Amino acid sequence: MPTTDIARRVYDHTWKLDPIVRSLLDTDFYKLLMLQMIWGMYPKVDATFSLINRTRKAKLAKEIDELELREQLDHARTVRITKKEMIWLAGNTFYGRKQIFEPEFLSWLEDFQLPEYRLERVGDQYELEFPGPWMHTSMWEIPALAIINELRSRSAMKQFGPFELDVLYARAKAKMWEKTERLKKLPGIKISDFGTRRRHSFLWQRWCVEALKEGIGEAFTGTSNVLLAMDNDLEALGTNAHELPMVFAALTDSDEDLKKSPYRVLQDWQRYYGGNLLIVLPDAFGTDAFLRDAPDWVADWTGFRPDSAPPIEGGERIIRWWKERGVDPKNKLLIFSDGLDVDTIIKTYEHFEGKVRMGFGWGTNLTNDFEDCAPRPTNQLDAISLVCKVTEANGRPVVKLSDNPEKATGDPEEIKRYIRLFGESGRVRQKVWV
Amino acid sequence: MPTTDIARRVYDHTWKLDPIVRSLLDTDFYKLLMLQMIWGMYPKVDATFSLINRTRKAKLAKEIDELELREQLDHARTVRITKKEMIWLAGNTFYGRKQIFEPEFLSWLEDFQLPEYRLERVGDQYELEFPGPWMHTSMWEIPALAIINELRSRSAMKQFGPFELDVLYARAKAKMWEKTERLKKLPGIKISDFGTRRRHSFLWQRWCVEALKEGIGEAFTGTSNVLLAMDNDLEALGTNAHELPMVFAALTDSDEDLKKSPYRVLQDWQRYYGGNLLIVLPDAFGTDAFLRDAPDWVADWTGFRPDSAPPIEGGERIIRWWKERGVDPKNKLLIFSDGLDVDTIIKTYEHFEGKVRMGFGWGTNLTNDFEDCAPRPTNQLDAISLVCKVTEANGRPVVKLSDNPEKATGDPEEIKRYIRLFGESGRVRQKVWV
Repeated sequence: MPTTDIARRVYDHTWKLDPIVRSLLDTDFYKLLMLQMIWGMYPKVDATFSLINRTRKAKLAKEIDELELREQLDHARTVRITKKEMIWLAGNTFYGRKQIFEPEFLSWLEDFQLPEYRLERVGDQYELEFPGPWMHTSMWEIPALAIINELRSRSAMKQFGPFELDVLYARAKAKMWEKTERLKKLPGIKISDFGTRRRHSFLWQRWCVEALKEGIGEAFTGTSNVLLAMDNDLEALGTNAHELPMVFAALTDSDEDLKKSPYRVLQDWQRYYGGNLLIVLPDAFGTDAFLRDAPDWVADWTGFRPDSAPPIEGGERIIRWWKERGVDPKNKLLIFSDGLDVDTIIKTYEHFEGKVRMGFGWGTNLTNDFEDCAPRPTNQLDAISLVCKVTEANGRPVVKLSDNPEKATGDPEEIKRYIRLFGESGRVRQKVWV
Repeated sequence: MPTTDIARRVYDHTWKLDPIVRSLLDTDFYKLLMLQMIWGMYPKVDATFSLINRTRKAKLAKEIDELELREQLDHARTVRITKKEMIWLAGNTFYGRKQIFEPEFLSWLEDFQLPEYRLERVGDQYELEFPGPWMHTSMWEIPALAIINELRSRSAMKQFGPFELDVLYARAKAKMWEKTERLKKLPGIKISDFGTRRRHSFLWQRWCVEALKEGIGEAFTGTSNVLLAMDNDLEALGTNAHELPMVFAALTDSDEDLKKSPYRVLQDWQRYYGGNLLIVLPDAFGTDAFLRDAPDWVADWTGFRPDSAPPIEGGERIIRWWKERGVDPKNKLLIFSDGLDVDTIIKTYEHFEGKVRMGFGWGTNLTNDFEDCAPRPTNQLDAISLVCKVTEANGRPVVKLSDNPEKATGDPEEIKRYIRLFGESGRVRQKVWV
């Protein structure tokens, strides 16, 4: 019996491309939920998504070959939803609900193709933009980020021989397993994988998801990655993102409408989804402002996802708000998803245990933590703070304020206008690591 | 391109046996050196080797299936030296010397087959004996130990699924790599693999050898495993073992001859080997006794291998002895090989640095350290103190005293006689871990 499979070896060494994105479902579930609503209610809105590298010292254009990047982006544009994937989207139960996707939406999705991109090298960085109809461009966010992050780690790993790579992954696996061992000690904790966009690689994300499944069992509630959810019979998780309130705000014509827009988004959302999908993302223009002006019915929603405030302060602020409205937080849900690591998860869990229902959407630190794993020092394996944000809607500038001014995006003049309207209460500058 | 190679899968799942010993060179190099001398000078001596499990709490007959053990032992008996192996033994340079093996010895070895064994289950342990001509039975020591140790770890690992095994080896690799990182900080250190007999498995030993080669580079001087030395172009290392003085002693007819026998061994050895192969193993009947009665010419030998005294005390005693004989220890070599781990290696290295040349023969803790690696607790992966010692020579009882009474072997009455003759000076009881 030969130890080398010649056919495979030849196939392997003649690869033109090892594609990073092989399925349109290799994206976050909330993109599909939002997409259905955008397709249904805002099919004529244009929205440009743009790559923003907040870690300026990571010189992407030096780390990643432009040709390779184009090949990967081009390849992603050739990918279509497959028959099996369509059947699964139509037949699976999401958040306890059957047929969450309308047949007309699915039949539109059947022909979906990622739209064109605009890529330019500017100094040591790339300018990468996706202009076009919102219901097309929105779908680029996750694959674009996954492609750049994986190309970056592939480039970092070119310096290592097979043995060093073996040690690197052995260490990363050992490290990941220690994390599961710490987490499984917390009774009733709920953790899910939110790490698609920042992952080291697709295969590594898959390994991490398997590690959580094996390691923490029932405490692992699912993954935001639709493909991994399908392949591993896991729950596909996620609700909505900042792009909704951001685009809604940009499209308003008066200050008054702008101030109301964060609540209009929720009303639209409610027309499509219910139950555990009624999760408020309050920080697009500052959580304090959002809570201050929120109509009472917002307190009827299932929960909140504080995404840029420090988790304990952010959670406590929302709990106070529920109590002021006579709502018992014990029946409510907080989803934490901002820059979590095991220490933050444990601290947050211990703080809120018994006070509120909780879920943890674990991202970068789950799927891209290679600190101290390389057999020779490199900082090219450190995760970076890379996002792909909507920057323009129907030709108008789009703004995000966030609870953390470091995470604000948009035109500086427009940011000033938003701050004048929403106020700065509760916004605290914190270092953004990932 | 299919991801499953059907032919290989079918081949794999129809294995009757996954052999542990696939080559007669999968043994310690010193066995071949000793064998040539035994073959040349003592071809008529009979010597029985017997398995001794010093870790009684490890119930080998419960951990290892008798049928599987017989299959592995029987398979080892079918193995012959291959043509390539013969050519390598004849053509390679060992310890800087060409043609270390005589053509007549090699042509005898060409037909060598491991002799029959006697296996019986007694309670929860196995009695395993190899009776017959010394020049046959001596070759069983290493494969017998390797087979039992690997069957034991295979049995321990049956409880784990593929994911758990992945984590187990990832952790073991990460752990091994930490060791290389600590060791490579010591300038000029010389470390070799002596871990064949106690290895977790053949494949794991091979990985550890590769790790040392990659991890500590020049500081890795070679391996005692002849097969691994050949396959990886490493130096094959090792000199001689206790079986020589033990059998020589057993064959003497008077107390006087018995007391002289440890030096007669060295004289015989010198007829065959020189240079760095002139390493004294002084502790068969106690190092103090050996040094006390040693003729002056013993101080001309290249070095000593203190194998059962604590390394610092044992080394210092020999250095004192060299100095008493007007020999500068800086030109002499100490080989440490007893129960080494990274801490002992570093402590010993730091103690003797600049005082004497040193080498470390790293065994069990190199090739069988899975402490805290299993994803679920098990003590079946802990290495045990298993040896295969010569117990009878030409029908006479064979004794080892050692510097550590815990490592003494032989008939209690006979041990008493040896103690009366050699004395007990310097013998200190220490826990034997491995």
